[in-house]
Amino acid sequence: MSSPPIGFIGLGAMGLPMARNLLRKGFQVMVVRHRDPNAPASLAALGAAVVDSPAALGGRAEVVILMLPTSREVEEVVLGLADVVRPGQVVVDMGTSDPVSTRRIAAMLAARGVAFIDAPVTGGVKGAEAGTLTIMVGGQSDAVERIRPVLLALGTVVVHVGESGTGHVVKILNNLIALSTTALIAEALALAEQSGVARSTVFEVLEHGSANSATLRGVAARLKEGRFDSGFKLVLARKDLRLAEALAEAAGTRLEVTAAALAAYDRACDAGMGDLDTAAIAAMKK
Amino acid sequence: MSSPPIGFIGLGAMGLPMARNLLRKGFQVMVVRHRDPNAPASLAALGAAVVDSPAALGGRAEVVILMLPTSREVEEVVLGLADVVRPGQVVVDMGTSDPVSTRRIAAMLAARGVAFIDAPVTGGVKGAEAGTLTIMVGGQSDAVERIRPVLLALGTVVVHVGESGTGHVVKILNNLIALSTTALIAEALALAEQSGVARSTVFEVLEHGSANSATLRGVAARLKEGRFDSGFKLVLARKDLRLAEALAEAAGTRLEVTAAALAAYDRACDAGMGDLDTAAIAAMKK
Repeated sequence: MSSPPIGFIGLGAMGLPMARNLLRKGFQVMVVRHRDPNAPASLAALGAAVVDSPAALGGRAEVVILMLPTSREVEEVVLGLADVVRPGQVVVDMGTSDPVSTRRIAAMLAARGVAFIDAPVTGGVKGAEAGTLTIMVGGQSDAVERIRPVLLALGTVVVHVGESGTGHVVKILNNLIALSTTALIAEALALAEQSGVARSTVFEVLEHGSANSATLRGVAARLKEGRFDSGFKLVLARKDLRLAEALAEAAGTRLEVTAAALAAYDRACDAGMGDLDTAAIAAMKK
Repeated sequence: MSSPPIGFIGLGAMGLPMARNLLRKGFQVMVVRHRDPNAPASLAALGAAVVDSPAALGGRAEVVILMLPTSREVEEVVLGLADVVRPGQVVVDMGTSDPVSTRRIAAMLAARGVAFIDAPVTGGVKGAEAGTLTIMVGGQSDAVERIRPVLLALGTVVVHVGESGTGHVVKILNNLIALSTTALIAEALALAEQSGVARSTVFEVLEHGSANSATLRGVAARLKEGRFDSGFKLVLARKDLRLAEALAEAAGTRLEVTAAALAAYDRACDAGMGDLDTAAIAAMKK
C-alpha cells in the first residue's frame, strides 16, 4: 500500500518522535487535538493533519497506531473507535499491553472486519527518534504485511513473531529479562559497596565482562548522571513484570527469579519512587 | 621488571591458552609435570621449562600464577609452596576464589614477605586464547604494578579495583549478574514456549532489544548448537552464586533475586546436570 493516511494516538516521549519519523518519510499522518497543544502543533508544522477527536481520526485513517501506557488506555481508545471503524482498516497497538486484552480486542475488531495488530517496540526514546526501533509483531499475516512499510519507517528490525498477542508476549519477555537484570545489578552494587568497592569501579570492569548488557550500560549512565526524573518509570516496569507473572499463572507455572525482582520493584514503588526511572532501584541504599 | 620467570599452575581450558600467550609474548614460563602430559608438553614445545613439582616451581619462579577451579585447590597449592617461597615473590590467583580465603592466604604469605594478588578474569576460553581477557585486580599497589606487564600479556583491560580480595569480590559480582541472567533467560524461554512462541524467534528479537547481553548471545549460541558438554559448568556457577550469598551474609544483608537464581542452579545440579554448561538450565523443560 502506498502511503495510507495514518492516524497516530499517543504523542508521549515515544509516540511523538515516532509520528515525526512517519511524516519525514512521506506518510500522511493525522493526530488528535489535545489538552497539551504542543505535540500536535509540532507535528502539524511537519504536515500532519490535526482532527478534533479520536472518532474523527478513526473515521478517516486507514491505519491507526496507538502508543499508550497500558492496556487500560488502549481499551478506552478502541471502545471510542468501535463505532467509526470500517472493514479493511488496521489498528496497531505499539505499546506494552496485556496479551489477554490484546486478543480480546482483536476478536472484537475482527467481527467488524478490522485487523488489530500488536507491534510493541524496544529501543527507547533514542531508538524512536532515530527510527531504529526493534518491533515484534503479532497478528494475521495479511494485515502484518500491509503495515510492514509503516513499521519499517519506525524501526530497523521488524519480526512477525506469531498470532495475535504474541508480539506483546515477546515484549513482556524482553522486559522481564531487562528489568530483572536491573534488580540484579542493584543487588550487585549494594554488595560492592558493602565490600568496599566503588560503583564506578564495578561498572568500569563489568562493562568489559560477561555481565555486560544493554541494561548494565543504561544503569551505569543513569547513576553517573544521578538523575532519575526521565526514562522508564518504575510503575510501568512493575506493570510489565506483573504481566509476566500473569502470563506464567495462566500457563500454570511460576517465575521465581522474576518474582524476586518484582518484589524489589514493589518495594521501590511503595516507597514513593514509582515515577522515577528504573535505575533508581540501583541508587537505593540497602 | 623485564621478563621474570613465571610459574604457571593450572593448565585447564583457561590456563593452557593463558600460559601459551605468556610464552608467545616472550616471558619465561615454568610449568609442572602432570598426570596428563599433553598440556606441559605443548607448552614445552613453545619453550616452557617443565619442573617436577609445584615446590620446584615455587623455588625458582619470581611470579607464580594459579588458575584453579576453587579456593580449595588454591589453598592446597599455596600450602605446598609455603616452605619454598622467598621474600619478593608474587603469587597471583587468577581463578574465581572466595575473597575470605584470599585475604587469609594474603596475610599468611605477607608474613613471609610474599605478595598474594587476586586477579580473576572474564572473557572465557575465547578471551584466554586471544589474550583479550578483562582482569580485575585486588592487592597492594606495588605488587600489582610489578605484575601489570604480565597481566597485560593475558588481557586488554586490567583494573586495580582495591585491596586484597576485592578482585575476587568484583568477579563474583560479575558472575552474580551473568549467571542470574541465565536463569532469567531460562524463565523467559519457558514462558515463550507456553505462549506458543519459538525460542529461535525470541532470540531473533531480543538480540536487538533492551534485553540484549553477552549472556543472552551466549545462551542463544549454545541452544542453537544443542551441546552443553563444554563451557562453564553448572557446579562452578553454583559455587560462584554461593560465594555471592556468603558475601552478603557476612555483610548482614540478603540477595533476593540472586537467591532465586541460585535455587534454579541447585535444582539443575541436584538433577545430575552439574557438569553441563550453564545454558543447559535454559534447555530444561518446565
